[in-house]
Formats: sequence, structure tokens, C-alpha cells
Amino acid sequence: MKDFIKKNLPKKSQSLSEWYNRVVMLAELADYGPARGTMIFRPYGYAIWETVQKYMDEKIKASGVENAYFPLFIPESLLAKEKDHIKGFAPELAVVTIGGGEELKERLVVRPTSETIMYQAYANWIKSWRDLPVLVNQWNNVVRWEKRTYLFLRTLEFLWQEGHCAHATWEESWERVLWGIKLYEQTYREIFALPTVVGRKSESEKFAGGVATLTCEVLMPEGKALQGCTSHDLGQNFSRAQNIKFQDKDRSAKYVWQNSWGFTTRSIGGMLMAHGDDAGAVLPPRAAPVQVVIILAKSETDVTEYAKKVELELVQLGLRVKLDDREEESMGYKINKWELRGVPLRIEIGIKEVRSQNLTIVRRDNQTRLLISNNNLGTVKTLLDTIQSDMLARQERFLAENTFEAITYNRFSEIMKTTKGFIKAFWCERAECEMTIKEETKASTRCLPLDAPKENGVCVKCGEPAIHRWLFAQAY
Amino acid sequence: MKDFIKKNLPKKSQSLSEWYNRVVMLAELADYGPARGTMIFRPYGYAIWETVQKYMDEKIKASGVENAYFPLFIPESLLAKEKDHIKGFAPELAVVTIGGGEELKERLVVRPTSETIMYQAYANWIKSWRDLPVLVNQWNNVVRWEKRTYLFLRTLEFLWQEGHCAHATWEESWERVLWGIKLYEQTYREIFALPTVVGRKSESEKFAGGVATLTCEVLMPEGKALQGCTSHDLGQNFSRAQNIKFQDKDRSAKYVWQNSWGFTTRSIGGMLMAHGDDAGAVLPPRAAPVQVVIILAKSETDVTEYAKKVELELVQLGLRVKLDDREEESMGYKINKWELRGVPLRIEIGIKEVRSQNLTIVRRDNQTRLLISNNNLGTVKTLLDTIQSDMLARQERFLAENTFEAITYNRFSEIMKTTKGFIKAFWCERAECEMTIKEETKASTRCLPLDAPKENGVCVKCGEPAIHRWLFAQAY
Repeated sequence: MKDFIKKNLPKKSQSLSEWYNRVVMLAELADYGPARGTMIFRPYGYAIWETVQKYMDEKIKASGVENAYFPLFIPESLLAKEKDHIKGFAPELAVVTIGGGEELKERLVVRPTSETIMYQAYANWIKSWRDLPVLVNQWNNVVRWEKRTYLFLRTLEFLWQEGHCAHATWEESWERVLWGIKLYEQTYREIFALPTVVGRKSESEKFAGGVATLTCEVLMPEGKALQGCTSHDLGQNFSRAQNIKFQDKDRSAKYVWQNSWGFTTRSIGGMLMAHGDDAGAVLPPRAAPVQVVIILAKSETDVTEYAKKVELELVQLGLRVKLDDREEESMGYKINKWELRGVPLRIEIGIKEVRSQNLTIVRRDNQTRLLISNNNLGTVKTLLDTIQSDMLARQERFLAENTFEAITYNRFSEIMKTTKGFIKAFWCERAECEMTIKEETKASTRCLPLDAPKENGVCVKCGEPAIHRWLFAQAY
Repeated sequence: MKDFIKKNLPKKSQSLSEWYNRVVMLAELADYGPARGTMIFRPYGYAIWETVQKYMDEKIKASGVENAYFPLFIPESLLAKEKDHIKGFAPELAVVTIGGGEELKERLVVRPTSETIMYQAYANWIKSWRDLPVLVNQWNNVVRWEKRTYLFLRTLEFLWQEGHCAHATWEESWERVLWGIKLYEQTYREIFALPTVVGRKSESEKFAGGVATLTCEVLMPEGKALQGCTSHDLGQNFSRAQNIKFQDKDRSAKYVWQNSWGFTTRSIGGMLMAHGDDAGAVLPPRAAPVQVVIILAKSETDVTEYAKKVELELVQLGLRVKLDDREEESMGYKINKWELRGVPLRIEIGIKEVRSQNLTIVRRDNQTRLLISNNNLGTVKTLLDTIQSDMLARQERFLAENTFEAITYNRFSEIMKTTKGFIKAFWCERAECEMTIKEETKASTRCLPLDAPKENGVCVKCGEPAIHRWLFAQAY
């Protein structure tokens, strides 16, 4: 396996995208589907999504939002109700034209997102202020016809949750927009051990049909940004387009205020790319389907029994444990296999460990070896917590070290030509400068960080007055 | 609301399908989607599916099966690999012909089921006996172009789980087929309080492309059968068509043995139809999103505080509780609303209850009223168990009373013309008789019950020798 990895896995630093694709395939996280641009979530990769789902679903429900399920197919005319929305999504649509052997009178779009189909129902359901807020979420699949695809990161079909709420006031709706983006920021931090920059998208980068979009931007190893998720303030754009009105307490008819927020399987790709190393994936303990793998140096009765006892005790501690007792694979092969798969902790058990009633335990993230006593298995749990926070700390350092400030356009261009990374720079907020910067440096506005202070500056491009430093980066 | 229900809800016994549609809509379980034949699972209906998912998913995982996710789109040529499979599904397909604004070179079928797309991957993944068994399940959406649709029971798009396993031997695969159908039988009994008849489908009714199909058949109130779920022995049909081979221990190359098994949201429709009454839905406690609703007779401080205390204690017992303290609705309105929604237990709290520290509690299934002490809230839990088993017992009685034996074809026809129900009758197992019986009586073979003894009989239709009594019924 060592040889196999050496032969098949380029160094991460040499060819990130090649390394990434190979790790995803060899670690059995995902595979390509037969139709161009589609992917298969293999059990090991899907289990990461299940962990995210469990974590987020509990928080979504605790906040009063209920799950539902709306249809996959949207009649073309319905999708077109909000003009900016259809303009934004038109180039990315998959369209069903034949059903039951016959050409359809009205073509059906496979949902790229569910605003229009959900809000048609909301228009029927909402009559009075008593029916508000409507707080609904769904876990489903959506399809966007991407030209160039990338496992997890950009695929024709992906999985996500999309929350869609309707409120009586803008203030209440905006609270939910913020709540959404904070949930995502927390999920990245707590589960994926990834810090993000939270902020507002520019007009040109915001959601098609929305008023404002919040995003979590993640910095990837080669200095490019990954848009990690989004939470949209839809204002009354859709309620006006789809006539969603309620009778308020004062008996006047008003349009509802809406928001939508989504977190996708793309996040798994970001997590894999950020933490992995030359030996393969490195999974944060809270995201890992297997947190501890136990490998037997010899498959003798004593060793197996001891290993099973350890396995049972770790399971009872609430850990996700795998005992690898396959006889036909060598110790070295198994070590490489589980390193490739990124299991946070590896326990090696041989005769020596049985005799001493100790365990040899190896951290995946930094290869530290420890000898711990069998009487003290609780330390395994503590160790997993330490790994999780160490991984986050490493990424925080990386983010800090690769976030630059640029006052001059020369400096801006130079960074984008060399190290890349995030740049904080004053921007006049005119689309023209934004476009020129992108054409010349490949860097786009990522967001205006929520915590950005109001300052007196001049646009890095045109020198006109600018009051905020925006975050720029090249993006996926 | 009473008036509202009276006006809008026909009696169940008078017009079952009309009653059913109204209950589903009025109880906010589901709604129609904008595209013909599609449906919206509203939060109250979707929560039932989540309960089923949680129950089944734990058992699926405990049996060693892992979840994964395969693409929605199947290239047309791939679906056509197994000849009987494509023949069976061809009339029901939704086809994507346009993607990203361009006509596709190869049309993409929206999955009606995932055998072909999953097994193409299996062919790549499986090399040796060491890779077996492959035990994979997915929770997803599928599309079948149905002509006439019915909320939950028959919709263009539905939700389900589909398990797909590959084994080295037929015996091992058959074990899994049986395991699947037993899981479903148990889910119907334990969660939905519905007894089923488990058996094997006839050749004409089995899965397109399979060798044998097991089914759970559920008897609906008007004496028609609902095919509740299926578990298929696929033999080597797909492994031969898609070339899924493994090298066995003896080094010879062999085709794998496969099975697939699915349980859909249609089951929720069966459950609603079976248990409901003239006042609306009646949900079995284990399936109910809300198990206990607390209604305030007056919204005075004392009453509200007492109700909140009761709510908290019931939640702490692990129950799903809803406190309805909406002030603008009358007591009568609320009672009818929650009866319509089928909540198993209703607790009514007024001044009287606060003074006596008692609770008035009403069973939804039989309208029994009880007074219980506030000190003894554990009885609420017991009461829910009693309701669950009483509901099952009622359905078992209904099934027994409506399962007939018919030796003569006259008797067979008479039953199908009058009471309907299940008929056990000898059948020679020739497709010709099966077809004639269906044309003349509308009854089709539902299954050969797994526990049917071998007997010496004559076919109810043609008089030729027959060794088994098959189960017949008119079907949805």
C-alpha cells in the first residue's frame, strides 16, 4: 500500500487538484457517476454528510424550523416568476421534456433550488399574521448544470439542506438570515475544524433574486477561496413576484419578508482539501466516520481478544471504532490504508501490548506516538478533542498567515501572482472596478466581513473614496 | 371547526377516496405540487416519514448495511442493460433531454429505481471474495410517471429507501431478501399498527428484472389491497447483464448474487387510510409527530402555568408533546383541529383540573375520557402503549374478518362483487388463469403467503391441479 500510495498519490504541495482527486477516490470517499459531472457518495464519504446532518438538523429543529419535502420538478413558468432568479439560473438547468413516453406540454425543470416551488405553496398557506412565521427546511438533492466539475466541490447534482422562512417583518427575517450563517460558521468550526470569514456578498455576487447574501468563505491550501455556504435575505422580491400576502393585526394586507439558507456537500470537499497531507485524508475527529481504528500486529487469539475488549470499551465511551482484523493484509498495508482514509487515531496491538496491558496509539494529524494504559481509555476521548482543537488552530494560523492587506494595486496584483490568499482592500463598491480587478488579477470580491469597521479609504483600483475593506481572493 | 369538518369531510364509509384526500389536505399532512402528480410533504406529514426513517435506519445499520448516495440521472443506455428491467420501467420514465441550455447527446433518465446505476459501480468495486458482501442502502427520491395519482399512495415522485446488496452465494443473498421483508413487516406492525400478509409475488407481478419478489400486502378499509413494500431476489440477472464478477477463494471467476429492497412514503398513505375515522386521521402513537396535545379551556395564568408544568414533565418522559395555547381559537375548534390531525391523546386543562391537580385525558382512537392524577403522569406513557396495541388488534380483527377462502369461482366472484377483501384460493400458477380472473373479477394475485402449506387442490378458475392457496384481492 505504501508503494501503491507513492505511485498513485502525488504530493499535495506539488499538484493539489491531482492529489485531491486521487485521495477522494483511493480513500473510497466518492466516485464518478456514469453521467458527466455526477458523483457517487460512497459509504465512507456519505457517513461524513450524515454526521453533519445530525449536528445541523438538531440545531435547526431546536430553533423552531420544521422539515418538509417539496417536489423535484418545477414547471418552467413557475421558475420564471422572479425575473432575476430565472436570469441567474437559466444557464444551469436540467430540463425534463419527456414523461411516460410522451412529450410534455410544459417542460419541467429539475430544481436548482426551491424558492419558486416552495413559495407557490406558501402563497396558498399564508392568510393571516397568525400563520407566520413559516419556518421550513428540507434535506434534498438539487441539480445545476456545471461545465467543469470536481468531486464534492462542484458536481451536477449535489446534496444540501435549504431553509426557507417567511416572516411578518424584515427585522425578524434578518434575524434568521444571521442565525443561518452563524449555524454554518459553527458547523465549519466545530465539525470540520475550519475557520471561515463571514460576510456579505457584493451586488454582482449575491443570490439571483435576493436582496443580500451572507457567506462563509474558506481559504484553501493553494490560497484560493471556497464559498462555503450562503444565507439570503430575499426581502419581498419573491413575495411580490408570487403574491404571498398576509392580513396583519391592523387588518391591512402585507407582503411577507423571506429568507433562504443552504449548506451543501461541497463543504466536505473543502474540509478534505484543507486538512489532508501527502499520506491522504486527515479527518477532524468530529467529522470522522471512524474515529479510532484498531490494527492487530498479529492475529493470535490473545491479541484478538485483547483488541476486542479495547474496541468494546471505546464503543461504550461513545466513540466510532473500527477493528481491522483482516488477515490477508500486512500491518504496513493496513497502516497506510487507514492513514489514506484519514482516521484520527490508530491503535496498534501486538503481543507486547497484551503483555504490558498498554496500547500504542498514533495521531494521524501529527504522527505522534503515545503509550497509554489500558486502564485509562478515557484519555482516548480527550486525545480526540485535542486533535480537533489542534487541527482548528493549525487552520486558524494558516488563515491568519495568508490574509493580507493591500493598499496599492501593485501590491494587490503581486500577491495574486505569487502566494495568493485573502486580501483585505478598500473597494469603492462599483461593479466596474470589481470586474476590472477580476479580469486583471483573477481575484473576485468574496465578501464584506461582518466585523469590518467603517473607515475612510480609497479604492485599491480607482482611488475613489471607499469606506470598507472588502475581502478579495481567487475563487473555485 | 366542527362545522368546517362536517361541511368538508365526507363520512369515511361513504366515500373513502374523497374522505382520504380531504383528511390529508385539511390535517396539513400533504398538498399537491404544481406539476401534475407531484406532492408536497408538509411538516406534519414529513415528520411521520422521519420517525420511520429513524426506526428503520438504526436497524439497517445494525445489520451491517451502510448508507450511500448514487446519482439521480441514469444514462438511457445504462438503464437498458437488463432487458426485462427496461421493458418494465420504460413506460414510467421521466427523461432529461436538455442540460445547460443544450440538447444532450445521451438522454438522462431520472431514476425510477437505482439497480443499474449502482451496479455499474459495483462492477468496478468488486474484484475478489474479500470485497463481498457489498451492503449498501440509500434514502432518496425516485420518479415514476404514473397516470392517475393519489397523495402519498401513488405520486410521480416519492421518497423511499432502497437497499442493494451483492453476495458470494445465493443462500446469503436470500437471507438478506428475507431480512428485508421482515424489517418491513415489523415496521408496519410496530410503528404503523398494521398487520400485513407476507408472501411471494407471482411471475407476472414480480419486479422487472428480478428472479423473485417478496411483498407485504396490507388490507385497506374498502377491501382492496395495498402493496406495502417489496424485497427482491435478483439472482444473477443484473450481475450477468452488467458483468459484476469476483474471484472466489478457489480462484474461479463468479457472478455475484444480488438483492434489492425498498420501503416508500406510500406506506404513510396506507396507515392514514386504515386507521382514520369520520373525524379525521387517527395516528398510532409510535408514528405520531405529536403524541399528546394539551388544550387550555381558559388562558388564565393558573391554567397556563399548570399546563406548562405538565408539558415539561411529559417531555421529560420522552413524549412528543404540543401545548396549544392559541387564544383566538375556541376549545371546540381546537378539539376538532387536533382530532382531525389524529393526535393519539388529548389533555384538557381548565380551572377544575388546576384545583383538583388532575388531568382530563381523551383517547383519539376510541374517545374514552379518563381523569388521571397529576402525580401519576407515567400512566400517559402506558396509555400510549395501550392505544398502539389496541389499534393493531383492531386491524388484526379487520384483516381476519375480511380474509376469505373460496373453493368455487362463483363464491370468489361473489366476494369480489360484494364485500371484497382478501381471498385465499387455489391457483394453478398459469398466467392465463391469473389474467382471466383479473379481467372478470378485478382481483389479482397479491402473493403466495410465506406460511402457506403445500396442499392438494384444484385451481379456482380452471380446475387443474394446484398445490397452494394464493392470496387474491383487488389492488390499488
